[in-house]
Amino acid sequence: MDSDLLLTELLAGKTAALARAISVVENGRPGFERLLAEVHRSLGRARRIGITGPPGAGKSTLVERLVGAYRAAGLRVAVLAIDPTSPFTGGALLGDRIRMESVALDEGVYIRSMATRGSLGGLAVTSREVCDLLDAAGFDRILVETVGVGQSELDVARMADSTVLVLVPESGDGIQTLKSGIMEIADIFVVNKADRAGADKLRQEIEVTLGIRRGNAFRNVPAHHGARIDRKGGGRAARREAGDASAWEQPVALTVAAKGEGVEELIAALDRHHEWLTRTGVLHERRRRRLMDRTREVVDRATRRWLWEETRAEQLVAERLDEVTQGRLSPYDVAAEVLEGLKQGERI
Amino acid sequence: MDSDLLLTELLAGKTAALARAISVVENGRPGFERLLAEVHRSLGRARRIGITGPPGAGKSTLVERLVGAYRAAGLRVAVLAIDPTSPFTGGALLGDRIRMESVALDEGVYIRSMATRGSLGGLAVTSREVCDLLDAAGFDRILVETVGVGQSELDVARMADSTVLVLVPESGDGIQTLKSGIMEIADIFVVNKADRAGADKLRQEIEVTLGIRRGNAFRNVPAHHGARIDRKGGGRAARREAGDASAWEQPVALTVAAKGEGVEELIAALDRHHEWLTRTGVLHERRRRRLMDRTREVVDRATRRWLWEETRAEQLVAERLDEVTQGRLSPYDVAAEVLEGLKQGERI
Repeated sequence: MDSDLLLTELLAGKTAALARAISVVENGRPGFERLLAEVHRSLGRARRIGITGPPGAGKSTLVERLVGAYRAAGLRVAVLAIDPTSPFTGGALLGDRIRMESVALDEGVYIRSMATRGSLGGLAVTSREVCDLLDAAGFDRILVETVGVGQSELDVARMADSTVLVLVPESGDGIQTLKSGIMEIADIFVVNKADRAGADKLRQEIEVTLGIRRGNAFRNVPAHHGARIDRKGGGRAARREAGDASAWEQPVALTVAAKGEGVEELIAALDRHHEWLTRTGVLHERRRRRLMDRTREVVDRATRRWLWEETRAEQLVAERLDEVTQGRLSPYDVAAEVLEGLKQGERI
Repeated sequence: MDSDLLLTELLAGKTAALARAISVVENGRPGFERLLAEVHRSLGRARRIGITGPPGAGKSTLVERLVGAYRAAGLRVAVLAIDPTSPFTGGALLGDRIRMESVALDEGVYIRSMATRGSLGGLAVTSREVCDLLDAAGFDRILVETVGVGQSELDVARMADSTVLVLVPESGDGIQTLKSGIMEIADIFVVNKADRAGADKLRQEIEVTLGIRRGNAFRNVPAHHGARIDRKGGGRAARREAGDASAWEQPVALTVAAKGEGVEELIAALDRHHEWLTRTGVLHERRRRRLMDRTREVVDRATRRWLWEETRAEQLVAERLDEVTQGRLSPYDVAAEVLEGLKQGERI
């Protein structure tokens, strides 16, 4: 398919063109950057929603329910599931994915899994680029699901307009050990499997923990600096304490995704969050910051590609390897030599 | 401390100097590359052993036992524990670490945890550099422990001379879902908690799976190419089938780390593996490949640092952000502009 035609059909929301465009981007095939540059002006329509949480929290089931509810409301929905390719959890995830693809017979739904391994320039960049394609293809909601291991939650937060953290009553014991970063990136908490014992207790614990953190942030500000309490970290909480109605208080929703319970309430919370994001200008601010991060990442990737494909770096590494192996040169000496070449504008 | 003195004391195995050197490297403080370049010629004495496996397999206990056994044999041992900083497992890992530090009162043992977050240039590079420091400080064995999530097992394998994969009888159901990559990076399998039901069954399953893989690799080679069966992938297995004594058959050791059972056998297997690595030249080959990867990574990091600290890239990204946010320019346009500047040898 010719690249102009691909772009036209992608923007028209054709599924085949979308699948092809994603494949071009995922594999960094010729023209992928031009394609992404072209769609850039058409972005911003979709709401990007991150769904994260520990393994076994029922994220996939919840996502399936959200898809169903959005479809019932006439919206087009895309799901991007980030598979952490753990060699120890691979099987279970795959099962979820296959099950969910039953809803994918619907033209208004698009589901895609991405593996964390081997994408040029890292998963973070590529998954954001795939979100752009989904956005450009006219989806109203993009649900990005990640298993909560490692760095992935924070990466989701950096790509999403709204981030949902899904826990289960059994997470209760662990709530104290959740690092503060994860509490703060969540715009909405979900206690899923809420028909099990301990759901209300977990909700209270989350609320208390959020309250303590808000309280501490406020208390850390010396009293005589009351007028400038929004300067450090505790800004949002502090504004709330100061009576500013623009603060967002993270709600805790109870759901039983397997039975569809609480899903409407979660959707309402997401709508409220979006309304808040828009009204306060936070949405614009988040998207702007996201674009800055993205631009840096794209510059990094382009530079790396140039370094290894168009300069002497690869050749130099190969030529010096014997000396490095024998201990006569170190990798740092080779790096310094490469860099010297770059600085002097050396070409191949 | 003056940097020459730091180097001298590090090479003399002084713990304070080692701790300081690690901190310099971890934080990328001025002179860290010079320090690493200086120690480069003193490397290669330590055996680097990777220990990986799923959460709950008892890796930390096993590592503690290995430390004890190596100490009893008069060897100096370092442990580098890679903490994946999962917000959901943070607590448990910390507990293990504190417990293990009881053995750290011994001068011949050094234990260090590294968090996966925020290290410049990524954890993979930095942890290898810390291994270099441990090697230069005269440790005989370096045990690198990683929780088996995400990409970390493969990264361990790329840094270790010998990689041990620790499983438990409960892993049995999952053995079929272990991706082939993980089976192949393991030089030695351990079934830990082997006093539980299913240990022998798991061992047999592992052996069958390894056998099938070896068999397939062999079968894929057309019969009339018998003389060249070591060309593709199945090389090692094929050589074994062909009667070449130089192949390594991954052993499966049964241990009960909590009681110290099977630890001597594991150490014997590690010794045999090291002997095999040395005799066949595979050790040299692995170290050479590792140095090539490392050199590439160091070149990448140095280039990145140069890009953002010494060229116009940062300024350009900031200047173009408004246009990017408004959709008039894309991140790809900005990357192209930065790259054009680099190619023309533009300076700040």
